Amino acid sequence: MTLDSFFRPKSVAVIGASRDPKKPGHVIFRNLLESGYKGRVTPVNIHAETILGVKCYSSIMAVKEKVELAVIAIPAPFVPEALEQCGKAGVKAAIILAGGFSEVGNKELEKKTKQMLKKYKMRAIGPNCLGLYDAYSGIDTLFNPKYKLGRPASGPISFISQSGAILTAVADWMSMKGYRASKFISYGNAIDVGEAELLEYLAKDPHTRVICIYIEGVREGRRFFEAAKNVSSRKPIIALKGGITTFGSKAVGSHTGSLAGSARIYSAMFRQAGIIEATNMESLFDIARTLSKQPKPKGPRVQVITDGGGFGILAADHIYKYGLQLARMSPSSIASIKKQLPPHIVTDPIIDLTGSADENGYRTAINAALDDDNVDILMVIALFQLPSLGGEIVDVIAEANSMRKKPMVFIAAGGKFTEMLKKSIEDNGVPTFSYPEQAVMAIKALADYSKNSKLH
Amino acid sequence: MTLDSFFRPKSVAVIGASRDPKKPGHVIFRNLLESGYKGRVTPVNIHAETILGVKCYSSIMAVKEKVELAVIAIPAPFVPEALEQCGKAGVKAAIILAGGFSEVGNKELEKKTKQMLKKYKMRAIGPNCLGLYDAYSGIDTLFNPKYKLGRPASGPISFISQSGAILTAVADWMSMKGYRASKFISYGNAIDVGEAELLEYLAKDPHTRVICIYIEGVREGRRFFEAAKNVSSRKPIIALKGGITTFGSKAVGSHTGSLAGSARIYSAMFRQAGIIEATNMESLFDIARTLSKQPKPKGPRVQVITDGGGFGILAADHIYKYGLQLARMSPSSIASIKKQLPPHIVTDPIIDLTGSADENGYRTAINAALDDDNVDILMVIALFQLPSLGGEIVDVIAEANSMRKKPMVFIAAGGKFTEMLKKSIEDNGVPTFSYPEQAVMAIKALADYSKNSKLH
Repeated sequence: MTLDSFFRPKSVAVIGASRDPKKPGHVIFRNLLESGYKGRVTPVNIHAETILGVKCYSSIMAVKEKVELAVIAIPAPFVPEALEQCGKAGVKAAIILAGGFSEVGNKELEKKTKQMLKKYKMRAIGPNCLGLYDAYSGIDTLFNPKYKLGRPASGPISFISQSGAILTAVADWMSMKGYRASKFISYGNAIDVGEAELLEYLAKDPHTRVICIYIEGVREGRRFFEAAKNVSSRKPIIALKGGITTFGSKAVGSHTGSLAGSARIYSAMFRQAGIIEATNMESLFDIARTLSKQPKPKGPRVQVITDGGGFGILAADHIYKYGLQLARMSPSSIASIKKQLPPHIVTDPIIDLTGSADENGYRTAINAALDDDNVDILMVIALFQLPSLGGEIVDVIAEANSMRKKPMVFIAAGGKFTEMLKKSIEDNGVPTFSYPEQAVMAIKALADYSKNSKLH
Repeated sequence: MTLDSFFRPKSVAVIGASRDPKKPGHVIFRNLLESGYKGRVTPVNIHAETILGVKCYSSIMAVKEKVELAVIAIPAPFVPEALEQCGKAGVKAAIILAGGFSEVGNKELEKKTKQMLKKYKMRAIGPNCLGLYDAYSGIDTLFNPKYKLGRPASGPISFISQSGAILTAVADWMSMKGYRASKFISYGNAIDVGEAELLEYLAKDPHTRVICIYIEGVREGRRFFEAAKNVSSRKPIIALKGGITTFGSKAVGSHTGSLAGSARIYSAMFRQAGIIEATNMESLFDIARTLSKQPKPKGPRVQVITDGGGFGILAADHIYKYGLQLARMSPSSIASIKKQLPPHIVTDPIIDLTGSADENGYRTAINAALDDDNVDILMVIALFQLPSLGGEIVDVIAEANSMRKKPMVFIAAGGKFTEMLKKSIEDNGVPTFSYPEQAVMAIKALADYSKNSKLH
């Protein structure tokens, strides 16, 4: 079977649904009722008649209608028995949230749990996990209240995380930033469904355009490698490896019950599997946003268009440091810009529209760069503190981006006015950044991915 | 004379003050009237009777009361004549905003301007600059409207920038973030006051605790070096060098009329002068916030306290990569923590309070780390998505920080709820970060500065 029973089941039961608003079993049940999930949601709890107005069952076996997915929100010792009942009731998939299994040395309980899955041919995500958030189907087993953990709107990025804390922090952060997501998956001890199978599923998921992974250690190295190699030729996979140092690895040991491998082996494996390796959490998602939104460049030549010389210089420094190149436009393009714009505009190698920049200057420069064969990538910097620069830039950028001729990123640092306009540009499909280095790291990954895809 | 005439003059005249709200001469005049500046502000404009209700003079020589600082907001060709009149009127200092001097090849005009300063023994900042923003005195010559360029509240960080665009973008960004500033200085072509003299002035400024610099090229290398060496033993100087690469340097040439030196020479000079070199704009101010708020550590041993294993691992990875160390608390400290907290808490090498963390767990762990001689620096990570974690953490952190025993930084990634609590923690004097790498870069700089200060 595919993993559809987890991500878009026809019906869900919450085992351990609760009337107490502080209990995970309450929050999850409420999420499923309120998050736009279209199927039937049934609460199971021996002590309650109804929960949030929905009839509650004392056992899943008492539920008349077929349940496809069971979310198991009860303590670890009761999990095998709950699974037995799920099996008898014909449940196909279970998300097991509780910790208290092999990660704290309780291997016996984990073994019993596995046996139960096998006996009834059920699939499971977990235990010791947060489960799923699917922005499209509304399946949401994150038991954090929404005021503390915003859920990202539906979009192209999926995230598989070995750390539940990282998953929730990132979901909350993405939601605030307005970045969009398809699926968030916390798979914990992975007694059944693991990284490799999730990768393969996301490769086929029409909503997922880019896959992000945070991993500390892989359980089935060979299978993961084969899956990644297969998937990465179709969709970009970006990974952040935690525990790459001795100290980090030590902490890994104490936290997930899986040993982190050597960092160098992982890096080599990532490279061979076509996985893009991020060096920190922010760049993981900076790269993901860029790859999910922008077309592949033909080469590494970046045309910087700015209204502030200093930002242009920093951009050039980072472009060089990260192994990209500054584009050199053809003499005819430069002559055309010179003809249309004031004489003090600088055109080579960076186009600096200077402090008198307006939307007309940006339009002229951007169009010239889009048409010039010596330019592969556009990096547009607009500092909105300038009196002459306003919201019209959003239209200029959106228009240029709609042609999808060449990848484009946008940089602006500032306060509320700047952030408002950046949000608008991000919504129009152009990745936005505050400072040059982050943007350069993202387009470097885009250029590398493009180069490697050609090799495949 | 000191530079006090620029930063806290008894009276100011705006030459070129305007009734037109779009003109720099209007915005600057309004800023000075409305920003809390306590001295007299006089508009000078031949065409107006009054501006914003204030009597306007046709020439500075017609102003009866003594003017200490003249802000010259008229086009370049008229600057020498305006300076002549300032000289005759007994003005001590002038901020010359207009571009159109040596940076575009007009050396003759720049020479004339210099001669005028010499003739009347006046000091000048500029030309081709934005001038000053002083959060304490209210002197504000930034001609960007406040809705586009927020002004940071008064605080410990001063910033000298060779790029006006970077200065305004950073001011606006700091204002939004709630980071606090003393003085922002854009000095442009530096025909009189330059980096070295500004450094020396800020060294004596009681409001400035940390000095940030963005430079592309230094005009008086030896003088700058001597000044920096002298100042850095008293106050930290953090510098970001723009144009460190061939491409960047090329852009520098076209933008400020000064040649960028070789990056390696600058790095060596920075090191010898005791300047901390930042690698990008964000870390420049991350380091500045940390150094301005936190005491010096005795050594490089960092105790990480977290509620999310994954974030702890990433922190450990970065601590190791940047050459710091994970602290190992004494057995007695660990025993004490174990006695007070639930058995599943992990204590070595990282304290992981796990998903059931509450403010009591943080208080216990933080107090143990503050008291343990094996710990030099505290890195506290709290992911507020946890249902058990709320605003009480702010008090725990503020209380621990008020003892000023050891430096502390705080990390939390998330959305609006998280950002609200982080703002509160930042206001309580603890630098806050979203992800581990940024925090590690900042404490690495703090540890290095502490080590180097001991050598002096």
